[in-house]
Amino acid sequence: MNYERVFQEAIDRLHQEGRYRVFIDILRNRGAYPNARCFAGHNGQRPIVMWCSNDYLCMGQHPKVIEAMEQALHDVGAGSGGTRNISGNTHYHLDLEAELADLHGKEAALTFTSGYVSNEATLSTLARLLPGCVIFSDELNHASMIAGIRNSGCEKHIFRHNDLQHLEELLAACPAETPKLIAFESVYSMDGDIAPIKEICDLADKYNALTYLDEVHAVGMYGARGGGISERDGVAQRLTIIEGTLGKAFGVMGGYITASKTIIDVVRSYAPGFIFSTSLAPVLVSGALASIRHLKESQVERERHQERAQFLKDLLAEAGLPVMPSVSHIVPVKVGDPVRCKKISDILLLEYGIYVQPINYPTVPRGTERLRFTPTPYHDDTMMVALRDALLEIWDRLDLQLAA
Amino acid sequence: MNYERVFQEAIDRLHQEGRYRVFIDILRNRGAYPNARCFAGHNGQRPIVMWCSNDYLCMGQHPKVIEAMEQALHDVGAGSGGTRNISGNTHYHLDLEAELADLHGKEAALTFTSGYVSNEATLSTLARLLPGCVIFSDELNHASMIAGIRNSGCEKHIFRHNDLQHLEELLAACPAETPKLIAFESVYSMDGDIAPIKEICDLADKYNALTYLDEVHAVGMYGARGGGISERDGVAQRLTIIEGTLGKAFGVMGGYITASKTIIDVVRSYAPGFIFSTSLAPVLVSGALASIRHLKESQVERERHQERAQFLKDLLAEAGLPVMPSVSHIVPVKVGDPVRCKKISDILLLEYGIYVQPINYPTVPRGTERLRFTPTPYHDDTMMVALRDALLEIWDRLDLQLAA
Repeated sequence: MNYERVFQEAIDRLHQEGRYRVFIDILRNRGAYPNARCFAGHNGQRPIVMWCSNDYLCMGQHPKVIEAMEQALHDVGAGSGGTRNISGNTHYHLDLEAELADLHGKEAALTFTSGYVSNEATLSTLARLLPGCVIFSDELNHASMIAGIRNSGCEKHIFRHNDLQHLEELLAACPAETPKLIAFESVYSMDGDIAPIKEICDLADKYNALTYLDEVHAVGMYGARGGGISERDGVAQRLTIIEGTLGKAFGVMGGYITASKTIIDVVRSYAPGFIFSTSLAPVLVSGALASIRHLKESQVERERHQERAQFLKDLLAEAGLPVMPSVSHIVPVKVGDPVRCKKISDILLLEYGIYVQPINYPTVPRGTERLRFTPTPYHDDTMMVALRDALLEIWDRLDLQLAA
Repeated sequence: MNYERVFQEAIDRLHQEGRYRVFIDILRNRGAYPNARCFAGHNGQRPIVMWCSNDYLCMGQHPKVIEAMEQALHDVGAGSGGTRNISGNTHYHLDLEAELADLHGKEAALTFTSGYVSNEATLSTLARLLPGCVIFSDELNHASMIAGIRNSGCEKHIFRHNDLQHLEELLAACPAETPKLIAFESVYSMDGDIAPIKEICDLADKYNALTYLDEVHAVGMYGARGGGISERDGVAQRLTIIEGTLGKAFGVMGGYITASKTIIDVVRSYAPGFIFSTSLAPVLVSGALASIRHLKESQVERERHQERAQFLKDLLAEAGLPVMPSVSHIVPVKVGDPVRCKKISDILLLEYGIYVQPINYPTVPRGTERLRFTPTPYHDDTMMVALRDALLEIWDRLDLQLAA
């Protein structure tokens, strides 16, 4: 057995398909977002404009967040020093969980080291505790939900993306007494479309199914207090579990779930990914608390964010660029080929100082490779026009199609 | 299907077995470790002495670490804003990975959001890429390794704890051409015993197996530069993969692996738990870098740590308390019953202001429930004598056995 050769062949396959990933070496400039620096190996150290961050509202740069993190650092130090059960349960964690439960109108909340872990740990644990549980999963669900579903060992049915009729067919085909769980997202981050949450809840009621909603690309950005699409649509109380992240619009790091006290207690008590991980560092928890509290009150970031996204979508569409039909803050531009997608991204970075990562398989299905722009409240008209012009020039250079 | 009842019954089972976990609500006092504060719900806010943190060397309180974290916070802000591939690959991450590769004498390194994720993601991904791979796993391996092995879908053989003869029997029974991976730890954190790494590497050579060593309870604390037991024993270069954590002796948060460039590239490119997680916040990465660099140079913390652990082991053993035979910095005292274990812990906290968490199933096998003390370089003689006296009084009160 030549291990090195097997592993090298796995890498070679990525190169052959044109989807070997190169991580761009960057540092943001605090207080001047979306401006950042790009390091050697990428044409030398030079200024760039970030166009693909999930720090959607720039809360990672907000003075209140930075100040809260400093405060915690000075109060208690760096890491938590343990799992939640063994010395890693700080008062910051409990405050944050109370804040998150309130944000989503639930009884309780639980934090994890990442959104990935919160999805994997919760789905695998809950389903495993329900004998014979069947999981109904949207076909575009995130890899972390897929991992949780697979690791639960439960029977799973995949319904076509946001397709209520298909979901109902699958639910109806399942015996009434079988435990059921419907897992889906609110904003699908690579397309920018939004699930019919209310209608899915109606089906869940009709067929007595639990609902698990991933709101990681919506919390902070939708709803009057940043509670996500479920808050905006007034259906938060109908969902069994709402999952979110502290690492995107809230600008820090970590994941969480909110639900009834019993469900939170069960996950807290049974999920290995929660039990056996050192808890979030207090410095992160403190920053997330400040961010959530700010966005519960302030509408400025949310309004400006939506306005900027719409401006960019219109600008690119009017120029004939293939903007995909997004109804959210995500602005995907379709390329449809991994090699070309990487090529455009490389030219943008090297020649224009515009940083947008190519999105290739397995993040999106093959044939739908794209550039995915995430305008923030701080991307101004000048930056957007510069982006449009750069894309038009590259589209021309590479002989790509524009709309008529 | 009454979901609430099923979940409530799962919680009830924990209460019945006496292993329902209560997280103690605390805050450490920076600069005064192991002193901390305990909050309401636990007999009011009052000072406590921490005895169960995995911030083994108090690096989470070290001025260099705090300063490095502040620096990053001011330089680039709070979170990284994305996965490593999509805008979350900062210069801090690359510096840290170079430092970690150097620490273990490997070509490359990769960071994860936690040690749990690093084990789960690496083991499941590598084994899945090796067709027909068989995994040989020490029976006391951590839950995260078990999760990775299970999620790989590979055939697995569990060898008796640290039992070379049993391991060899299992290896020998497997066809020569079958890909093999031996997964084990250096310091087993609940018992404090240490694996025969060199001898396991000899077996790996003989049977052409890959080796995966978890050093999370050893990095920073053993070896001339804190490279762990594999450095102390001079065998680091013989291991295929060394895994470690930034959240214990290094005092911050996060996990990592070090290995050949090819293996790191494969995990980086194929592991969902890595690909689809927002990267570690730069503030954590910066703190970890400072901590590792300090412990590469300084012996003071390591020497004092070992001296303090030996002092405590001797002190408790001389008093007849059932100290388990640890050859490391871990000082476990056996109780053997979950209810009694929790009771002792409660009395220590409420009456003595001594915080040590009961360690019950599933963290340790049933019947081996214990108190697990982790003396740091800053636990002085007075604290240790106070701990011994408190334990003796409680042992007497609860009619527990002392050695003759």
